[in-house]
Amino acid sequence: MEGRSDHPPVHRETRFDADVARYAARAKGMVASEIRALFAVANRPEVVSLAGGSPNISGLPLDVVSSLLSDLVLQRGTVALQYSTAQGDPTLREQITDVMRLVGIEANPDDVVVTVGSQQALDLVTRIFCDPGDVVLCEAPSYVGALGVFAAYQCQVVHVAMDDEGLVPEHLENAIRTLAAQGRRPKFLYTIPTYHNPAGVSLSPQRREAILEICHRHDLLIVEDDPYGLLGFEGEPSRALRADEPARVVYLGSFSKTFSPGLRVGWALAPHAIRDKLVLAQESATLCPPAFSQLAVSTYLANHDWQSQIKALREMYRERRDAMLSALDDLMPPSTTWTKPKGGFFVWMTLPEGLDSKAMSPRAIRERVAYVPGTAFYADGFGSQCLRLSYCFPPPDRIREGVRRLAAVIEQELELRDTFGPFHSGRRKGVESPGPDLR
Amino acid sequence: MEGRSDHPPVHRETRFDADVARYAARAKGMVASEIRALFAVANRPEVVSLAGGSPNISGLPLDVVSSLLSDLVLQRGTVALQYSTAQGDPTLREQITDVMRLVGIEANPDDVVVTVGSQQALDLVTRIFCDPGDVVLCEAPSYVGALGVFAAYQCQVVHVAMDDEGLVPEHLENAIRTLAAQGRRPKFLYTIPTYHNPAGVSLSPQRREAILEICHRHDLLIVEDDPYGLLGFEGEPSRALRADEPARVVYLGSFSKTFSPGLRVGWALAPHAIRDKLVLAQESATLCPPAFSQLAVSTYLANHDWQSQIKALREMYRERRDAMLSALDDLMPPSTTWTKPKGGFFVWMTLPEGLDSKAMSPRAIRERVAYVPGTAFYADGFGSQCLRLSYCFPPPDRIREGVRRLAAVIEQELELRDTFGPFHSGRRKGVESPGPDLR
Repeated sequence: MEGRSDHPPVHRETRFDADVARYAARAKGMVASEIRALFAVANRPEVVSLAGGSPNISGLPLDVVSSLLSDLVLQRGTVALQYSTAQGDPTLREQITDVMRLVGIEANPDDVVVTVGSQQALDLVTRIFCDPGDVVLCEAPSYVGALGVFAAYQCQVVHVAMDDEGLVPEHLENAIRTLAAQGRRPKFLYTIPTYHNPAGVSLSPQRREAILEICHRHDLLIVEDDPYGLLGFEGEPSRALRADEPARVVYLGSFSKTFSPGLRVGWALAPHAIRDKLVLAQESATLCPPAFSQLAVSTYLANHDWQSQIKALREMYRERRDAMLSALDDLMPPSTTWTKPKGGFFVWMTLPEGLDSKAMSPRAIRERVAYVPGTAFYADGFGSQCLRLSYCFPPPDRIREGVRRLAAVIEQELELRDTFGPFHSGRRKGVESPGPDLR
Repeated sequence: MEGRSDHPPVHRETRFDADVARYAARAKGMVASEIRALFAVANRPEVVSLAGGSPNISGLPLDVVSSLLSDLVLQRGTVALQYSTAQGDPTLREQITDVMRLVGIEANPDDVVVTVGSQQALDLVTRIFCDPGDVVLCEAPSYVGALGVFAAYQCQVVHVAMDDEGLVPEHLENAIRTLAAQGRRPKFLYTIPTYHNPAGVSLSPQRREAILEICHRHDLLIVEDDPYGLLGFEGEPSRALRADEPARVVYLGSFSKTFSPGLRVGWALAPHAIRDKLVLAQESATLCPPAFSQLAVSTYLANHDWQSQIKALREMYRERRDAMLSALDDLMPPSTTWTKPKGGFFVWMTLPEGLDSKAMSPRAIRERVAYVPGTAFYADGFGSQCLRLSYCFPPPDRIREGVRRLAAVIEQELELRDTFGPFHSGRRKGVESPGPDLR
């Protein structure tokens, strides 16, 4: 971002004109997010940012990690600092199967491919499956980083509606049938069934069964993205879709929310044939994921009580979720609605009729509160009446203050609306690129 | 690799058939290297591997690295373990410009994009420039990992001949003209001008001028890959092409050969407009490169005498280069020829007429010596009379022993040839995927 901001636009234009004709078609869809500028401002200390999705890692036992990594270099430095295989470290892959067991998955380490965060897993899955124009089914709204990948591979995203129980089976069935009537077949369903980003809802057990049945009947591949699955606030973790349909689901996992995003260690669990293609794709993409990061995670899992650490994270995020929901209940004007997450990082808010979250955003920033406008989470420009609030990073008192400021901004917007009539923003083209603080 | 080897092929086939119809066109070009199996064997201790391109990192000051990383976590853990920006850490990008100054490059840190090894830089450059069917000019032979990337993006690779002074300007000119006559224009020239992998030659200063002049005249973009530029055995480092043509060259650098491949830190230096696209491509590919790896390299550069470390590496590799060249002089049968590298890791050997490096490979393995057959370095199946020998990893005495074994194998092949006539292998289709030990 600092890079993008500090050289003269005219200079960029000159260079740009010289090169643009040579770019690949896919590059034309790569455009900087309209809300980047807002993010630059949102990161100012006086602004309460309810926009970012970065985990709060202040609770990590840095002394433990420090000595583990020190020992790693001394004892296994020539392995940790050397190339690894493209598939990833066998011990780590074994440990990853232990982690997945917590969401009901029984897997063979041989079917795991380690990736540079689960973002890269999604990039590689899309790389091996999607030709330009191919259809990918996504929830409405969907993860902005996934929409960025699908745009980069020139996929056509078809959104399928959700409600408070997550993806709606009837709408999925209809979307598949409508496409079939056009002679089109989606490459896969991309879904975040548990603690959805940005919607903050989870797929109910009955819904999971129904979704699996529909995908089975239509022989549709499922890409299950599960970065928040272990960060639930109530009872046991939800059972992953992959747990009941090993041959039809590519499961994407990550240590970014449960340990450290800075190591960039995620993974894909896939049927053998797909796993083989993912390994080959990883080889041409990076040769291999960072050995050091892999062994760092591996030694952390082996030598630290990571499950208690996750329990502590759950407590911290639950307290923040509670702070946000009670602040919303206390402070938001009527006719503003929002979801009630049972885990994860996000609340999805719907503004009163006639309000526009992107138009409101600069005014919110001026009032020192930031959020992500809903349009970022749609490939088709919808979502202007919605916005994403995250409670993962700021402490509870800041969350309440942020909600207070946001409520005031919405009140002002309502006055404007009632005086001048509803705001109608034109529908935006293209996809917001994820941006460093949008994950 | 271990993954690929230990499940029954029949099982894989079953799954494969179920999914193959759905893969993207680009995935059909992703096939496992024919020589992977050989590599599995080549890694046995009794085999002298002259095949691998992994740097010898045994000389790294592990105690220093250990305490630097320990301090990094204690003092800056919440930054090093958190997401970074897609472009990469500003301090590291500043330090990268210091590194590039050693090859004559004056650059603005704002034009540097940090990548997951320079392999990913090449992947991202190809991603933003190349549509399926686009032509990329490469040296003949060229880096196998680059050919893997170009295959993954469905590029057409046109090889341009080299000699002992590197890429031959007349052949480059002819290739461009021939394509122009077909109404085709290459997207860029991919070149490793210094200590070429696999050819072991370097572009002479006069040649550099000539190549730049030709690319300027034809307005051709250059992608300069320079992983070995600081690992020369004689005099000062060669001046990078980028040093004299900032607006026309995308320069790819890496810390894999000068510090650690396991951290996967490389970079691209590009004109602003291209830099912008690379940052957006990085966001959808990985969100951001590993912060920990970036700060690890940054603290190493800031707190250790890295230039002396590189000097020590040069001495070690020079001794091994000398060991290989003298062994080749002493032991190889006449009519076998090879290049005399002035830096880097590799010697390129041409076998006597009628011998085939791939057909010979299993017999070489049986005699406990491994190399990479030349066909791996061509997109078009050429190179069967050539092979790559690397001296980077085994100690000098093992290198000599490996060459002794290889010479014996070649002698046997010559006997077979003189008895049964020349061996003619069919030309192989497709590209060898780089594989974990082929870089």
